[in-house]
Amino acid sequence: MKIDGRHYRTIFLDADGSAVQVIDQTRLPFAFELQHLATMEDAARAIRTMVVRGAPLIGVTAAYGLALAMREDASSEGIERAVATLAATRPTAINLRWALDRAASVLRGAQARERVALAFAEAGRIADEDVASCRSIGEHGGRILSDIAAAKGGRIDVLTHCNAGWLATVDWGTALAPIYAAHDAGVPVHVWVDETRPRNQGAALTAFELHAHGVPHTVIADNAGGHLMQHGQVDVCIVGSDRTTASGDVCNKIGTYLKALAAHDNSVPFYAALPFSTIDWTLNDGVAEIPIEDRDAREVTHLTGRTAEGGFETIQVVSPGSPVANPAFDVTPARLVTGIITERGIASASPEGLLGLYPERRKAA
Amino acid sequence: MKIDGRHYRTIFLDADGSAVQVIDQTRLPFAFELQHLATMEDAARAIRTMVVRGAPLIGVTAAYGLALAMREDASSEGIERAVATLAATRPTAINLRWALDRAASVLRGAQARERVALAFAEAGRIADEDVASCRSIGEHGGRILSDIAAAKGGRIDVLTHCNAGWLATVDWGTALAPIYAAHDAGVPVHVWVDETRPRNQGAALTAFELHAHGVPHTVIADNAGGHLMQHGQVDVCIVGSDRTTASGDVCNKIGTYLKALAAHDNSVPFYAALPFSTIDWTLNDGVAEIPIEDRDAREVTHLTGRTAEGGFETIQVVSPGSPVANPAFDVTPARLVTGIITERGIASASPEGLLGLYPERRKAA
Repeated sequence: MKIDGRHYRTIFLDADGSAVQVIDQTRLPFAFELQHLATMEDAARAIRTMVVRGAPLIGVTAAYGLALAMREDASSEGIERAVATLAATRPTAINLRWALDRAASVLRGAQARERVALAFAEAGRIADEDVASCRSIGEHGGRILSDIAAAKGGRIDVLTHCNAGWLATVDWGTALAPIYAAHDAGVPVHVWVDETRPRNQGAALTAFELHAHGVPHTVIADNAGGHLMQHGQVDVCIVGSDRTTASGDVCNKIGTYLKALAAHDNSVPFYAALPFSTIDWTLNDGVAEIPIEDRDAREVTHLTGRTAEGGFETIQVVSPGSPVANPAFDVTPARLVTGIITERGIASASPEGLLGLYPERRKAA
Repeated sequence: MKIDGRHYRTIFLDADGSAVQVIDQTRLPFAFELQHLATMEDAARAIRTMVVRGAPLIGVTAAYGLALAMREDASSEGIERAVATLAATRPTAINLRWALDRAASVLRGAQARERVALAFAEAGRIADEDVASCRSIGEHGGRILSDIAAAKGGRIDVLTHCNAGWLATVDWGTALAPIYAAHDAGVPVHVWVDETRPRNQGAALTAFELHAHGVPHTVIADNAGGHLMQHGQVDVCIVGSDRTTASGDVCNKIGTYLKALAAHDNSVPFYAALPFSTIDWTLNDGVAEIPIEDRDAREVTHLTGRTAEGGFETIQVVSPGSPVANPAFDVTPARLVTGIITERGIASASPEGLLGLYPERRKAA
């Protein structure tokens, strides 16, 4: 998507192919800077320090890290060493592991002198496939938005939670892809951006993305969405998903469930936009079966931001001595989800709906 | 309630009656300090700068401000001048106006030499009546908690939103009064404290109160409550109310409605605790009829807190250039409210329920 009118991906090759460039997301939203990744260690550090974030982007960065590693040592031992180093950067990131396995299996079957070129090509393919998948989500979801706009005959208001935007992928994003697609097609879209405590990905990243691309939007406290829906100020909700059950339950950033309840109570359609890779076909009851990560209390007690002088400061905002709990995700039951938008189309949030989009899973079931 | 084992009110007379003392709430939760109000101007400044906050406490502070004014000028002109000055400190605070009118009407009918003593006595009565009202709310609501604890046979978990605690009143509070009553009676109560963005009254004030009094509690992001209810970790919700319709709709801090939806979806009882003075008998449809204040965007974009060095700093947390909306309250429809706890008892959230507690309103209707 665009920043100041120029198109970017979150990760791309230098013009001369000598290094990989990534947007440094630790500097957002207050500074837009690129980082050059010239070695495998640079790539590993970028993942470890969250210079890059979001499952798809982490996977692509790891694949490029493997390609950079081949420049230094294209031996079979070099492959395995690089895979081990890169996989250890974020041990729980399934997509990272998947991208490394895919790229490494291409390399293992090839001769050492071919491996640099093959690795860069494979990393590029993984990136391009992610872009294509997100663009498809955007096209399918964009039609929902243009239909609502046509029925309403004016500006439509979309509410989103957290950041499932292009910064979490290579381009387009998932939940934001339909918004970009509709906006670029001339549909008058305005987005309510939940700040998304405690990590504020909405206030920091979604707001930055939308502002940079020129999509009208307004940041709100997470508490405000229900009130807006009660007063007819939200036409549709679109969120992402970290994990989706075969039955259509959606595990997404903490607080998503509350917005789905408010949407249901006010007859506002509620969609989850997600790539097939987040669907876990082995799960049927998301609330019961999906373990929810409890994260560091400090994410709630402390915030980092920019001071009036332009520096950065971390402040404590919770009363000292009070314990804190910080569950990172919640599960929205399928009964509250109007539909699921994937790269293949739009399905009802049900076993039949999802199997309709992925009929090859029917045999496996 | 207690701070480090010693009982406090938020406002009280010096031992020698020479000045009024208040807890400086602008210093909480990081410092506990008292402020002496020796003159009417001190009292006016304390209200204006939010050294004191919460409708009941503001009213009592204004009444003491009038008493302090009588020391300087007990003439009839002195009364009117003081009332005008004090009323202007927070023009929209209905309780402030009410307390001033009540105290002034006592003074107007008295002789000048009696006015100092009468004014202090009346301010003290207003304070004592507020304490008695809150204590009654605590007793009625405390029975709900002890019943749930008895049925459960163990620790009960209460979720609350914002600060409707003793710091917003003279003592006890409204939503927190049942919690203090139950805790003091030996009921094992644990409280989930919503941080309550954007102003963080939960994280700062409710957490401070409960910690200081020794009530077990845990601070959570506002987004977390639904997830906790889905997993059986909340037995009951209790919130306050800024304005209550005759039909039982509850207008309270933004985000309350979302918690009521989650409580309803998970069969968790949801109570509002409030004094009769918040009931507006002229209103029947809260969502349609209650205007919601839009507050300064800066409450969302900036936060103030303590740095690692112990100083205070204000930081920006929202992406620069992004617009912000900041509705301060929302309305929870009566259908989501299990019951309303007032100083007179517990009623269903309905016209009949509230009239049952306030039969004198039946004639007026």
